[in-house]
Amino acid sequence: MSEIKDISLQVFLDQLASKASTPGGGSVAAIMGAQSAALTSMVCNLTLGKAKYAEVENDIRALLEKSEVLRDQLTRMIKADIDVFNQLMATYALPKETDEQKVIRSAEIQKALREATEIPVACTRLCAEAIALSRVAAEKGNIGAISDAGVAAMAAYSGVKSAALNVYINAASLKDREFAEAKLAELDQILNGLDDDVEHIYQLVKNKL
Amino acid sequence: MSEIKDISLQVFLDQLASKASTPGGGSVAAIMGAQSAALTSMVCNLTLGKAKYAEVENDIRALLEKSEVLRDQLTRMIKADIDVFNQLMATYALPKETDEQKVIRSAEIQKALREATEIPVACTRLCAEAIALSRVAAEKGNIGAISDAGVAAMAAYSGVKSAALNVYINAASLKDREFAEAKLAELDQILNGLDDDVEHIYQLVKNKL
Repeated sequence: MSEIKDISLQVFLDQLASKASTPGGGSVAAIMGAQSAALTSMVCNLTLGKAKYAEVENDIRALLEKSEVLRDQLTRMIKADIDVFNQLMATYALPKETDEQKVIRSAEIQKALREATEIPVACTRLCAEAIALSRVAAEKGNIGAISDAGVAAMAAYSGVKSAALNVYINAASLKDREFAEAKLAELDQILNGLDDDVEHIYQLVKNKL
Repeated sequence: MSEIKDISLQVFLDQLASKASTPGGGSVAAIMGAQSAALTSMVCNLTLGKAKYAEVENDIRALLEKSEVLRDQLTRMIKADIDVFNQLMATYALPKETDEQKVIRSAEIQKALREATEIPVACTRLCAEAIALSRVAAEKGNIGAISDAGVAAMAAYSGVKSAALNVYINAASLKDREFAEAKLAELDQILNGLDDDVEHIYQLVKNKL
């Protein structure tokens, strides 16, 4: 089977719509983040080498470097979400006939849940970084491509909010409450002020159109 | 060249990040909408045939029918955005040496701008419909897939806000102010109350997790 990033948009949408559990919302969150990073890169690529933007050339070059690393990380996250979800489903399918099997199954589920909590937290962190990068693109990038910076902010915002839902689900099933609460606190910190940031970028873009 | 929906996610992201003007934010808006419709379909497909949801079987079947039509419309919108943008760019490249050429060029630009305003308005309308469908999925769908309904709401929301930016840009360049104002009024009506709707769906989902 092809890796998820190598299938066509149409096939991806067909698989998404099907009753198969993966790909699902977690992969969509990562794709929205990857699209955000790609759009910031696009704004950079439409800014570099233009005389009018010579003054910000170095800033934009540094921004492009970051957005391309981030795009790669978020593209990998599409598959990571599928892997961690399938792994979790596999632990639920473990035998639970004997007491020993029940103990093993429960421990395996908890182990998988930890990872299924960490992966979407990482996704929210990467998407929040994509928002921060889109802001630089909106502030300094080619004004002719400024709407793409606005779309970059919105796409990453939905990526954060979407991945957060997977954190909430999986953290709720964790028996290690200390770990769960730590992850939820980490998420809260990532979400803190994000609505206002995105609204600020959106208005900045809208006012420049 | 392959049609955009038939290229891989990776190639799409690469093209998006490049300095080519298309695909750009308009296509990303349509993809977010298509992903939203696909996720609503997924929730439906994970609900249909389950004894626990027998009571809503007919509602969910009707919802799936709508979400699949919408997914098809939004998938077509990915290409429509590219076509209309390329068409607009082509009119700007028309010769403008003689007075006659200038008149023709200006008329062609205005004609292309009308379509480049109508297409993203249509995209916002379809994405707003995707939000409405995600709400039904969140209210009535399989609770085990409820987070996917939340992601569907967020993805379509970013789709609306993103496509709106393209409406603002192109409407601003239209000389036919009556047409432009009518389109902006249409957009305002689509946007009206949408923030609250999406927040409501998101909280509904979060409370069910």
